[in-house]
Amino acid sequence: MNNRYCIIMAGGIGTRFWPLSRNIKPKQFLDILGIGKSFLQMTYDRFAKLIPESNMIVVTSQQYRDIVKEQLPQLSDDQILLEPFRKNTAPCIAYATYKLMEKDPKASAVIAPSDHLIINDTEFLHNLEAAFELADREEVLITLGIKPTRPETNFGYIQAYKSKKPVNINGHLAYEVKTFTEKPDLELAKVFVDSGEFYWNSGLFIWNLKTIDKEMDRLMPDIARLFKSGKGIYYTDGEQKFISEVYGVCRSLSIDYGVLEKSEHVRVFAANFDWSDLGTWESYYLLKEKDHKGNVVDAPNNFLEEVRDCVIISEDKNKLLAVKGLKDFLIINTPDVLMICPRKEKAVKQLLTDISLSKLEKVL
Amino acid sequence: MNNRYCIIMAGGIGTRFWPLSRNIKPKQFLDILGIGKSFLQMTYDRFAKLIPESNMIVVTSQQYRDIVKEQLPQLSDDQILLEPFRKNTAPCIAYATYKLMEKDPKASAVIAPSDHLIINDTEFLHNLEAAFELADREEVLITLGIKPTRPETNFGYIQAYKSKKPVNINGHLAYEVKTFTEKPDLELAKVFVDSGEFYWNSGLFIWNLKTIDKEMDRLMPDIARLFKSGKGIYYTDGEQKFISEVYGVCRSLSIDYGVLEKSEHVRVFAANFDWSDLGTWESYYLLKEKDHKGNVVDAPNNFLEEVRDCVIISEDKNKLLAVKGLKDFLIINTPDVLMICPRKEKAVKQLLTDISLSKLEKVL
Repeated sequence: MNNRYCIIMAGGIGTRFWPLSRNIKPKQFLDILGIGKSFLQMTYDRFAKLIPESNMIVVTSQQYRDIVKEQLPQLSDDQILLEPFRKNTAPCIAYATYKLMEKDPKASAVIAPSDHLIINDTEFLHNLEAAFELADREEVLITLGIKPTRPETNFGYIQAYKSKKPVNINGHLAYEVKTFTEKPDLELAKVFVDSGEFYWNSGLFIWNLKTIDKEMDRLMPDIARLFKSGKGIYYTDGEQKFISEVYGVCRSLSIDYGVLEKSEHVRVFAANFDWSDLGTWESYYLLKEKDHKGNVVDAPNNFLEEVRDCVIISEDKNKLLAVKGLKDFLIINTPDVLMICPRKEKAVKQLLTDISLSKLEKVL
Repeated sequence: MNNRYCIIMAGGIGTRFWPLSRNIKPKQFLDILGIGKSFLQMTYDRFAKLIPESNMIVVTSQQYRDIVKEQLPQLSDDQILLEPFRKNTAPCIAYATYKLMEKDPKASAVIAPSDHLIINDTEFLHNLEAAFELADREEVLITLGIKPTRPETNFGYIQAYKSKKPVNINGHLAYEVKTFTEKPDLELAKVFVDSGEFYWNSGLFIWNLKTIDKEMDRLMPDIARLFKSGKGIYYTDGEQKFISEVYGVCRSLSIDYGVLEKSEHVRVFAANFDWSDLGTWESYYLLKEKDHKGNVVDAPNNFLEEVRDCVIISEDKNKLLAVKGLKDFLIINTPDVLMICPRKEKAVKQLLTDISLSKLEKVL
């Protein structure tokens, strides 16, 4: 058990819940659902049920160091890995992998996004336990696949090789993987869902570090070599300087594209927990409890008239929001931004893209 | 000339430009048009071109005393009449009339709302000058009528007796009055406009105080008697106490209903200046210059996408207003209220009525 680690990736910049989430405080650090914990804290607590707390690792951006230490004060400095630049997931995972291997060559790890939502912990932990068992037994890279409930076009899809016999770990089935597809269009997504062969890519990976080491060596040797060269420097005062230099020359690459889509050792676990990447205001709306008019309201001082199916949030609890005659809108009021936008994903996305292309980056 | 006075009625509570106007600072004290002067100050300046400044009187509510003194510091205390309660226009005019008559029995006066907009001062002053001439020559109560340009249902209408020969004062025609009609429905308003006999009631009245005294005596003797009984008390330390007692027992009545609709001495001047009572957000929208998308925007920090024919005002100049996909809406952001409402008058009115019926009066 003590060779099992959890690597939480918490360096993302989050404008998808803009204007609640901001570059200075992205989604993983927010309590958007009003639970009393940030996504990062929920993620940590979920894994800490299976993984020893000393084996929890958070990889984040240098700029978020203080907020991670504030939200997870139990972490020692060696458990917080700081990236000087954003280079997508492959360098992030390589950094954590080779640092950990220096301490524990037998380590296996779950790699986890910090800002997803998982409802039923018990099923999740059973899936995770089974995945660790398989990862320790076979040289495979395991992804947790979520059975799709709708033809979502914002997720990646993993196709299981259903004609090949899956491995059965205590009733959990691990399939070989046929294809990866990033964000299909709606028509394709419908075909995927109907086929019964496709799973949503949850971004949760489990493997023994030796296995990922071997595959990184083979499939992205430049990046593997860079981070391997830190042997003897990790856990010393020289680590941060070394990492700065490595990140300066390392290319940006996702682990999906760099390894998973190319390796023949990938397996997908047909997971059965309730999962959402909560990547959009729309997913937030679908998840939250609505009043009898279909509104999700977190603005104690409000007067709504003929308002339906809207999300209305105000961080200014004293301000009266007097709203009339809107349907399917977001009204998000923060101290320095008021957003009023149709709820549908494309509208929000377009608005944010256009704002980021304008001279207004400072508000993101 | 020194017997001519101007009585500005500035006691109104204004929620019609809510949430910009509030009970603590109603419309007449605001610079809604962004000119650099409040409506009250514009009104004062307009009349001060014809009336000696020492003959300018402002009647307002006790609660607005400080704001009047701040906006019109040139006024002496005797020029500011303070009402302890709101009792509509008849007591307000009776108070000013009998106080002024004590000082100047020969006085004539123009009675003016404090929150209307008049564009062309020159035409206006010619009309006013002619009206004063007639008021000094004949025992008549003169109303300035505005030639209607649309079948407005929010104004009162005055029907001129066109078959009777008007009095001609330097080219300005004063007609006898046939009828008064308060806020007709649309169908009736169309008939009025088409007939050519009807004028909008601007709320601007000119008369010699002796004439209005006689008519008040005859048509609302209870109110006339109350304020006449202040003879010898006006301009003394006892005035405010006397006025408090009188307002405590005086009934609430409009001068239109109390005198003008009943008197046979009323004349309507066919005025030819550009006038608006600016009584609604819709009238504000119609008046203001719009950008090429039909928006009236007073929010320096804004990002608008697919926003058309809206009014967008923010008193928080630092806050970014990111708005998408709205047409014909008002977005008014003040320190303690955010209003989002369809622009059309009925929607705004209904929202305000419903808010005032709710427990939220404190925000009005």
